[in-house]
Amino acid sequence: MSQLDDLLRDLVVANRILSNEGVVDAYGHVSVRHPDNPQRFFMSRSLAPQLVERRDLIEFDQAGEPVIDTRQPYLERFIHAAIYEARPDVTAVVHAHAEDTLPFGIVEGAPLVPVIHSGSFIGGKVPVWDIRKKFGDTNLLVTNMMQGRDLAKCLGNGRVVLMRGHGFASAARSIIEVVRLSVYLPRNARVQMNAMRLGAKVTPLSKGEIAARATGYKPNSPETWRAWQYWAIRAGCRAKLGKPPRAATEADRETR
Amino acid sequence: MSQLDDLLRDLVVANRILSNEGVVDAYGHVSVRHPDNPQRFFMSRSLAPQLVERRDLIEFDQAGEPVIDTRQPYLERFIHAAIYEARPDVTAVVHAHAEDTLPFGIVEGAPLVPVIHSGSFIGGKVPVWDIRKKFGDTNLLVTNMMQGRDLAKCLGNGRVVLMRGHGFASAARSIIEVVRLSVYLPRNARVQMNAMRLGAKVTPLSKGEIAARATGYKPNSPETWRAWQYWAIRAGCRAKLGKPPRAATEADRETR
Amino acid sequence: MSQLDDLLRDLVVANRILSNEGVVDAYGHVSVRHPDNPQRFFMSRSLAPQLVERRDLIEFDQAGEPVIDTRQPYLERFIHAAIYEARPDVTAVVHAHAEDTLPFGIVEGAPLVPVIHSGSFIGGKVPVWDIRKKFGDTNLLVTNMMQGRDLAKCLGNGRVVLMRGHGFASAARSIIEVVRLSVYLPRNARVQMNAMRLGAKVTPLSKGEIAARATGYKPNSPETWRAWQYWAIRAGCRAKLGKPPRAATEADRETR
Amino acid sequence: MSQLDDLLRDLVVANRILSNEGVVDAYGHVSVRHPDNPQRFFMSRSLAPQLVERRDLIEFDQAGEPVIDTRQPYLERFIHAAIYEARPDVTAVVHAHAEDTLPFGIVEGAPLVPVIHSGSFIGGKVPVWDIRKKFGDTNLLVTNMMQGRDLAKCLGNGRVVLMRGHGFASAARSIIEVVRLSVYLPRNARVQMNAMRLGAKVTPLSKGEIAARATGYKPNSPETWRAWQYWAIRAGCRAKLGKPPRAATEADRETR
Repeated sequence: MSQLDDLLRDLVVANRILSNEGVVDAYGHVSVRHPDNPQRFFMSRSLAPQLVERRDLIEFDQAGEPVIDTRQPYLERFIHAAIYEARPDVTAVVHAHAEDTLPFGIVEGAPLVPVIHSGSFIGGKVPVWDIRKKFGDTNLLVTNMMQGRDLAKCLGNGRVVLMRGHGFASAARSIIEVVRLSVYLPRNARVQMNAMRLGAKVTPLSKGEIAARATGYKPNSPETWRAWQYWAIRAGCRAKLGKPPRAATEADRETR
Repeated sequence: MSQLDDLLRDLVVANRILSNEGVVDAYGHVSVRHPDNPQRFFMSRSLAPQLVERRDLIEFDQAGEPVIDTRQPYLERFIHAAIYEARPDVTAVVHAHAEDTLPFGIVEGAPLVPVIHSGSFIGGKVPVWDIRKKFGDTNLLVTNMMQGRDLAKCLGNGRVVLMRGHGFASAARSIIEVVRLSVYLPRNARVQMNAMRLGAKVTPLSKGEIAARATGYKPNSPETWRAWQYWAIRAGCRAKLGKPPRAATEADRETR
Repeated sequence: MSQLDDLLRDLVVANRILSNEGVVDAYGHVSVRHPDNPQRFFMSRSLAPQLVERRDLIEFDQAGEPVIDTRQPYLERFIHAAIYEARPDVTAVVHAHAEDTLPFGIVEGAPLVPVIHSGSFIGGKVPVWDIRKKFGDTNLLVTNMMQGRDLAKCLGNGRVVLMRGHGFASAARSIIEVVRLSVYLPRNARVQMNAMRLGAKVTPLSKGEIAARATGYKPNSPETWRAWQYWAIRAGCRAKLGKPPRAATEADRETR
Repeated sequence: MSQLDDLLRDLVVANRILSNEGVVDAYGHVSVRHPDNPQRFFMSRSLAPQLVERRDLIEFDQAGEPVIDTRQPYLERFIHAAIYEARPDVTAVVHAHAEDTLPFGIVEGAPLVPVIHSGSFIGGKVPVWDIRKKFGDTNLLVTNMMQGRDLAKCLGNGRVVLMRGHGFASAARSIIEVVRLSVYLPRNARVQMNAMRLGAKVTPLSKGEIAARATGYKPNSPETWRAWQYWAIRAGCRAKLGKPPRAATEADRETR
């Protein structure tokens, strides 16, 4: 199989993992940039991620429009298109309504910060994008490139941005990484909420810890593969799993 | 199949979805108004929604009494009868005890408001009906038309009303819509509870946003169908799914 | 089948329901008084309720000792023996560690009260038994009749008593009723905890409402059967379900 | 089967139980000391515990290095190696990220204490190890013996230590005991968090109660076996269950 075939197979698995882990439900979506043409990306047609198969994938252009396909695409595909446009380093994007992240998007003065090691990708704190600031009263959905670009601006160089009263968007360097972020973001949120309610000062990860974890991240490490494999099998996608990266099988005494 | 057949098939699916999504359990029910005779409605006999089949459905008159059937009906069928009577625009009703909505029904000064986009149907805030105000000490169940009418009055022109110490009733223009409301109401409640505990000011949806979402709602859109299909399949009702509305399959670049 | 056979069949189902609904796990147990000999009761041997079959049931005497059986009984069988001794009106008892009830047993000044209609059986408020008051430092388990009797004294004429740092015991007039109480107690606790955190005054059920619901309770009503049937089927016990009470199938316009 | 065979079979079951009970997920691990050579221990290769089979087990030396195996080991095997080194009484160790324990590891002044009887093993309160104190900014993982030893020092003579922003490590006298601790620690944490939010003074277990439960613990009692059997069957490991200890089947009127 070509690299593109592998990528699209992984995109289907990503859909199933995000659904099975409760990050997305009927709504929410994940995309991947075309490995050979950075102005294109792939995502399912409008369908609950749980149901996505290879045949449901559509190729989009940089304006978020299907290149050929006539089936109904996701209304909010512009989230993906705009992030790919703004961030050449990003190859995969998720949009989700994961419930436990939502409280942080609708309050003032209580930012979502990394408090557990698996939440370090958050960076300093998660920015909150409020569509109302620039666009007034809307139905809260990102349904055109102008809104998408404003969201991407709020995301900046980060990995995740909260969307007030709506959900979040995450952006990463690979499908495995964006799925990982999206699964751990709600967990970090839950732990932070619970810690804050203990009525005591909460210790977030330090800047140095965030940096150390960012530096150490290896997308093809055994540690990364372990989670992908586990989530994929839990999601019933054992048959769809590709081969683990060479580094994941050999004795690799890396210090991550 | 006739329109009535389709409706009753969807009513069975609605029962299963509401049960599978945890909105109802042994208790709780959903009904639909007769498409040809507005003074009649259909609902299951007294049975946990999880177990409802087509043969369990009973036709009721406007007083909440079975037209012919002699099997035991739900005690609280008057919730449905009274709402249909008061609201010619309503074609489907749900009554549920969904746990996460209950706190808002038993406190003063902390109304349930729309804080996430999928909760916009709430309107400004959810009214709370306390049976004790007019009926004194009862077993809290709506067991006659007088109580049902008082509840319907509290519902007013809205989509949902909380019943103090008991649950909620929701009313909509279609089965798909009432199921949707009933699934998202507890989610909105959970997010609001969690946000309030962050000790910061909570930003609800603005009036304009609520209006924009109300205006944009299309009952047969791909976006609406996507959730119904997903929930139905999760509930094991794939075989019972009707055909998606034409608009759900064709490329439909609507801006909702 | 005799009445005793039916009762023992229901006792097995009760074990499975309590386990499946998360009230008990490896620990916790349910018993029923002998219908013909009030000084005897039946309960499983020491086994997780999820695994209990008819052959695991043991007959106990009023001192909590097996009449004949030599297999290991539950250490805390004295909870049951003592409640049967103190309460001739009780025919079924549950002991459980259900997590959501525990916070109310370990704090001062925040009693568990009925806040939802299905929690009305609580009565005014749930008494808390602290084994330490009379017995000093122990392993917190009720392992003899003296401790059991002290617990039964705290239960008084009520339906449930919390055991500080441990769990609760519930007592009712039938297996169906004690299972019902035990399933709804944690739910009432969760709703009360969530309501208290909204920072507002919580409205409990009034004395009159508690009384109205107590008066109206009919153990063989369709409403009661509906839940038992639902829980039993969810627990995989459809084949073990007895016939519904006559009143549950005929049109019975009772006002509960 | 030899004692070693039984132990390794139980180690596989332990992996599955910890995963099924939500203590570990893709990450986290459990080990057991070699019954004949205290300087060796066994643990799986780098793999999600849910997937561990007998063939995945690796024998490690006291420095945390595989004796022969060339497959990728867990990066944090030094948690296990260091605890075995510091604690001759310990024969089994778990490292997990169980979410509900994390809040207590990231706040000041709100220690995790035993509040329910099944949490008595905690002792007075759970110590919190912050890797930053001695090692500055790291990726928070214990990836060498120096860090492992510092963690073991914080564990002291206890059964569990929280790792700030990361998870916990538990240490016990047997596989059954370490699994038990690890399942009940998050439960104790949840109950304590919920009790603290009731705004009232929380009653922890007294020193005498903690001691009484510690004295009474019998690793091969019917009470202990009951939970292991239940968890193993829930985890799909019925076929892997060994024979219950003789004491678990005979009538054993112990007073624990």
